[in-house]
Amino acid sequence: MAGSTLGTIFRITTWGESHGAGVGVVIDGCPAGLPLTNQDIQEYLDRRKPGQSRFTTQRQEGDEVEILSGIFEGRTTGTPIAMFVRNKDQRSRDYGNIMDVYRPGHADYTFDKKYGFRDYRGGGRSSGRETIGRVAAGAVAAKILKSLGIEIRAFSKSIGPVSVDPARFDWAERENNRLYMPDAQSAREAESYLDEMMAKKDSAGGIIECWMEGLPAGIGEPVFDKLSASLAKAVMSIGGVKGFEIGAGFEAASLNGSVNNDPFGIDKNGQVYKKSNHSGGVLGGISDGSRLTFRAAFKPTPSIASSQETVKRQGEETCIEIKGRHDPVIVPRAVVVVEAMAALTAVDLLFMSMTSRLDKIQAFFAYGQALEEEREKKERG
Amino acid sequence: MAGSTLGTIFRITTWGESHGAGVGVVIDGCPAGLPLTNQDIQEYLDRRKPGQSRFTTQRQEGDEVEILSGIFEGRTTGTPIAMFVRNKDQRSRDYGNIMDVYRPGHADYTFDKKYGFRDYRGGGRSSGRETIGRVAAGAVAAKILKSLGIEIRAFSKSIGPVSVDPARFDWAERENNRLYMPDAQSAREAESYLDEMMAKKDSAGGIIECWMEGLPAGIGEPVFDKLSASLAKAVMSIGGVKGFEIGAGFEAASLNGSVNNDPFGIDKNGQVYKKSNHSGGVLGGISDGSRLTFRAAFKPTPSIASSQETVKRQGEETCIEIKGRHDPVIVPRAVVVVEAMAALTAVDLLFMSMTSRLDKIQAFFAYGQALEEEREKKERG
Amino acid sequence: MAGSTLGTIFRITTWGESHGAGVGVVIDGCPAGLPLTNQDIQEYLDRRKPGQSRFTTQRQEGDEVEILSGIFEGRTTGTPIAMFVRNKDQRSRDYGNIMDVYRPGHADYTFDKKYGFRDYRGGGRSSGRETIGRVAAGAVAAKILKSLGIEIRAFSKSIGPVSVDPARFDWAERENNRLYMPDAQSAREAESYLDEMMAKKDSAGGIIECWMEGLPAGIGEPVFDKLSASLAKAVMSIGGVKGFEIGAGFEAASLNGSVNNDPFGIDKNGQVYKKSNHSGGVLGGISDGSRLTFRAAFKPTPSIASSQETVKRQGEETCIEIKGRHDPVIVPRAVVVVEAMAALTAVDLLFMSMTSRLDKIQAFFAYGQALEEEREKKERG
Amino acid sequence: MAGSTLGTIFRITTWGESHGAGVGVVIDGCPAGLPLTNQDIQEYLDRRKPGQSRFTTQRQEGDEVEILSGIFEGRTTGTPIAMFVRNKDQRSRDYGNIMDVYRPGHADYTFDKKYGFRDYRGGGRSSGRETIGRVAAGAVAAKILKSLGIEIRAFSKSIGPVSVDPARFDWAERENNRLYMPDAQSAREAESYLDEMMAKKDSAGGIIECWMEGLPAGIGEPVFDKLSASLAKAVMSIGGVKGFEIGAGFEAASLNGSVNNDPFGIDKNGQVYKKSNHSGGVLGGISDGSRLTFRAAFKPTPSIASSQETVKRQGEETCIEIKGRHDPVIVPRAVVVVEAMAALTAVDLLFMSMTSRLDKIQAFFAYGQALEEEREKKERG
Repeated sequence: MAGSTLGTIFRITTWGESHGAGVGVVIDGCPAGLPLTNQDIQEYLDRRKPGQSRFTTQRQEGDEVEILSGIFEGRTTGTPIAMFVRNKDQRSRDYGNIMDVYRPGHADYTFDKKYGFRDYRGGGRSSGRETIGRVAAGAVAAKILKSLGIEIRAFSKSIGPVSVDPARFDWAERENNRLYMPDAQSAREAESYLDEMMAKKDSAGGIIECWMEGLPAGIGEPVFDKLSASLAKAVMSIGGVKGFEIGAGFEAASLNGSVNNDPFGIDKNGQVYKKSNHSGGVLGGISDGSRLTFRAAFKPTPSIASSQETVKRQGEETCIEIKGRHDPVIVPRAVVVVEAMAALTAVDLLFMSMTSRLDKIQAFFAYGQALEEEREKKERG
Repeated sequence: MAGSTLGTIFRITTWGESHGAGVGVVIDGCPAGLPLTNQDIQEYLDRRKPGQSRFTTQRQEGDEVEILSGIFEGRTTGTPIAMFVRNKDQRSRDYGNIMDVYRPGHADYTFDKKYGFRDYRGGGRSSGRETIGRVAAGAVAAKILKSLGIEIRAFSKSIGPVSVDPARFDWAERENNRLYMPDAQSAREAESYLDEMMAKKDSAGGIIECWMEGLPAGIGEPVFDKLSASLAKAVMSIGGVKGFEIGAGFEAASLNGSVNNDPFGIDKNGQVYKKSNHSGGVLGGISDGSRLTFRAAFKPTPSIASSQETVKRQGEETCIEIKGRHDPVIVPRAVVVVEAMAALTAVDLLFMSMTSRLDKIQAFFAYGQALEEEREKKERG
Repeated sequence: MAGSTLGTIFRITTWGESHGAGVGVVIDGCPAGLPLTNQDIQEYLDRRKPGQSRFTTQRQEGDEVEILSGIFEGRTTGTPIAMFVRNKDQRSRDYGNIMDVYRPGHADYTFDKKYGFRDYRGGGRSSGRETIGRVAAGAVAAKILKSLGIEIRAFSKSIGPVSVDPARFDWAERENNRLYMPDAQSAREAESYLDEMMAKKDSAGGIIECWMEGLPAGIGEPVFDKLSASLAKAVMSIGGVKGFEIGAGFEAASLNGSVNNDPFGIDKNGQVYKKSNHSGGVLGGISDGSRLTFRAAFKPTPSIASSQETVKRQGEETCIEIKGRHDPVIVPRAVVVVEAMAALTAVDLLFMSMTSRLDKIQAFFAYGQALEEEREKKERG
Repeated sequence: MAGSTLGTIFRITTWGESHGAGVGVVIDGCPAGLPLTNQDIQEYLDRRKPGQSRFTTQRQEGDEVEILSGIFEGRTTGTPIAMFVRNKDQRSRDYGNIMDVYRPGHADYTFDKKYGFRDYRGGGRSSGRETIGRVAAGAVAAKILKSLGIEIRAFSKSIGPVSVDPARFDWAERENNRLYMPDAQSAREAESYLDEMMAKKDSAGGIIECWMEGLPAGIGEPVFDKLSASLAKAVMSIGGVKGFEIGAGFEAASLNGSVNNDPFGIDKNGQVYKKSNHSGGVLGGISDGSRLTFRAAFKPTPSIASSQETVKRQGEETCIEIKGRHDPVIVPRAVVVVEAMAALTAVDLLFMSMTSRLDKIQAFFAYGQALEEEREKKERG
């Protein structure tokens, strides 16, 4: 048990269900001195908010964050940051149709098997709303990374059969369409495809790609807490993710070593660089200083309005049509969730990496002493 | 730092480098009472041993395991099990050519960046020999699982461009060829392909698929320690793995919900079952009682004999040809490593799952008391 | 960093400061199926509430708990239980006198050194209010233990120079006085002593003793997570605790082996028992089935109204008199905190102990299967 | 289970039993670049070696350490350091007398209850030999601390009824007697007392005090991983320790706030200092820059030659006299073990503290970059 915590030095614990009082997160291990406002968090939450387009649920979820602790005079204090988003729109509904029925592709059956019973209103803990805590914490992680020159951006690489065309790739376009595709034409095609799926009472999946730039070389802990392995766990823990790959990924399996190996060279500043990036920014599971790139495969939304065969908890076969508004695809809203998981993983391993060399540790404590003395001098005038 | 430990309740710590005294592992948290001999471990180690075919290195590595602790009168005592395999074949060689040169596709550069210097003899800690500890521990985990009715088997699904044909799939064939392919014809084709690669001084990658059968429903801890996420981390931590997918995996991204959702039914024994298995045995990250299936993509062996562009530590460009015997593909020897990582993950999460329900905990302690009283009666005659 | 989490399987994370929005806790790893109401928690919180006597602060803190997640239809669901207590009585005060001054015996100076600045309103994170989260979680842990036949009770053993007289020891008395002393006469003497201290603008410390009964033998994990060691950490983490001892404790250092060793015997039911209990219920750090007894030494409350020498943050010497109402002793209110820490530690190690023997694990899974089948039969009629 | 690991960033895992192949430890998370030789370790091990005086067992245990990994060209590489000490002197003995009998004061009974059976030869895992791994790892931790200006020294404060007289306290004396008492006269008295105990077939306990100097302010993580709490756990995990206290400890419980609070002052260099040290170097669980002082109470050796009442595993009462040579007191040999546990705890929390402030983290990464560029320039000439 106790699987709701992620990270070692920068650690988050999420809590909450879709139909309880709300959802939240506690960040423990955030360094003191980071300027942080509700607005920093809200910008991230708004990107996963429903109701942004006709392909996302229309529930008015507001999702306004309250920061309950860990901030004083606009800056983090180094103590736990608790954040809370109340659930709204919890009209009492009739759950009679799903109370005893296992929805295919959902976790209803496995929760029952694991816990003996379940909160049958919505997805309970396995609801997409659980990701609110991740995104809120991810906003903090991303702000720390930014202050260190590290930037993370993800996008919808494919939705159903429609993929971004590398020739038309344009980050600016990502903001122009609600599918988070950096390619206007693909976005239009994907919209048509989703309209078609909705008409057919069906749903679609897709692939998200994420880039991290500015991460120094040397991040990731051999042999189990490799950067690639830790990212895989963080990303695969998002509901609906069925695959993860880094760099050339599955394609690497059919390449030859002479092609897949990235040659090293010396750039005009005398710095080592890689002439290609099949590795996706990791060698031996440790960041190599080049752009980190990875992808996550999302399955199609399991909630569909067409009739599906299933069983009741009591052991009889039945059929179910899942009513209500459900996103025909979760990929666009999951883009910010993937960014959040990448940020959380990177901050934790970045902090971990600080003790890899004794000479740097010695310098850190010598410097800390100097910094302190300087501050004291200043304060004392 | 401290990334050499995996697991929470059943926990392993590996240590050792390719050219030090040896490699080893400590298992902490193995239950008392498991019958265990060197032979149990050796059978697993022999499957990753080099020199088994012309596609694996010919070094005579013996790799004989010594169990140093944790066993008494043929059974585990519940205390840490330390296992040790000495490095042999460490003739003093001339490392002049790789001492200062970063081999493309290897971790030489990133180790230098992380630690300030590195053990340049062979791959050091990032050598494939590090997996010996994983496999030795995996043998113990697999034996525990077997005692609970759970079985794990992996195979080479593809090597370079050659894939197993599902129509010819036959587990029995896996043992007949040294590529661990469950399809005799594909194995022959893959062998030809590898001969070709060796002639070209090049290398190949491939895909390993793993099945786990008998795992009860309910294993995996929401939300971060999902079975799928934990497997992803464990498998992605193996050197050379660039991708992981479970069930339909990346293919699911282009399926529709009506196809990808697995309908539930009631079998003739009155048990719930899934009519298909796109989920690969997990729903909401928790085992659903059906067969667990996942795949790992391995990149081609980075050590190739043809000339590659690279740089020296001192900052000048150069070329390198990696001499010595290197496997043209690591996939066949990695099959048992994948099984080991799956076993280690499953045991840990299986043990974790034991506290998910209060009624079962109450029964456990009541039963334990009863068991103890019975033993006492028996011993006292 | 990230020190706000305790436990491995049954894990709590506390958050909050004395003058922020509130304080709270997330319990992760609570088994499903435990009946739980606000009242269960409130009873514990009320025992640490201020304003109960003239020796505790008169602030009207209410301290009403809200359970935000993890409960459905009156029972725990197995998902995280988030609990929240709002801070009231936060009138805007003038903190000018303590903003820049380090209060002796408080954490003001060390927080400044660690984090670079601090929330100077009250004790911030090092305030006694932080223990609210511990007590709320401890109430849940204690309820689980009770369902397994395990009971925990603590009491004030001494306050300043006044100690409970073993000859007059009476649990019933503990509830009759607000000092939680199981001895009416000592309680009266301690009250007089505290009156005297208040008149002198001074404060007192004391010792709390805790008993745990019903814990089965075999709990505690060699060699670092011994029951005694884990209790020591949990209890020493309470603000103001300067010492911990188990069984004969410090006195054992001057006893001889022939006296300190507890002889074993066989009772009339044929069960092994110890004829004395110098060990305090642990042998080799593992519970031995007899009563667990330990003590914690609390320093005197550091907030006193008499003048104390100290310094300002800016580096000049000054004096401070700490105004406002402060408890002249924290021991009585800490009794429930000690019980909570004991309960949290015991539950976690009890759950940990469930995988110590393979035969019991095998029985657990066989039983689980049987239980499941029985439930299904019942539900299907 | 899995209790054989201590620490988060600097982490050790010990293994081994008294009568198996040997005992050992794996250190994971040791920074790269520390010069380290067998001799560094051996010096520490020799201090806990038996056979140093007539009060320690005469078994010729040699206890020579082998370092199996993690060192290259005389420096740590940042990868796990595995260390191994073979058990010698394992003549096959007749264990018939203890095989089925529970020795009072030992862990025989609790191991049987926990694991169902036990390695009955000697103490198995609960033997004092297990501390060899702790001491070997502690030697490494102490060397890191020394390189950062931090020094740890412990001594025997009392043995049985004989205590060091503060008026005669002299560190130099500690090395002159094998009881590790910094007071020649007390050492002589303690020796007489131990002679008397041996004649009476009895044993003694004692108290060890430990000092740590040079630790910067700010170490320790609120609220559970406080420096005081973590030290308590580490020290209480040593076999035979029944109590732990820091600073004034249990005595603080009877002091008044006006006495126990340590006033702050400004020294002639303009630095903040404490005018007394009742706190023992921690405020709010965080180091305050003054000397850290703590004490551990050891029970008398449970192995005594006089007759004791006990029971057999089979449920009948019996008597036992424990033959063979056993130390009449373990305190002198435990002094280095206490130092080791303190060093391990301090290194881990020191490393933890490095991420408490964002400004220092930013400086660390900027500095790391600068350091790297400088190195490159130098290497490139």
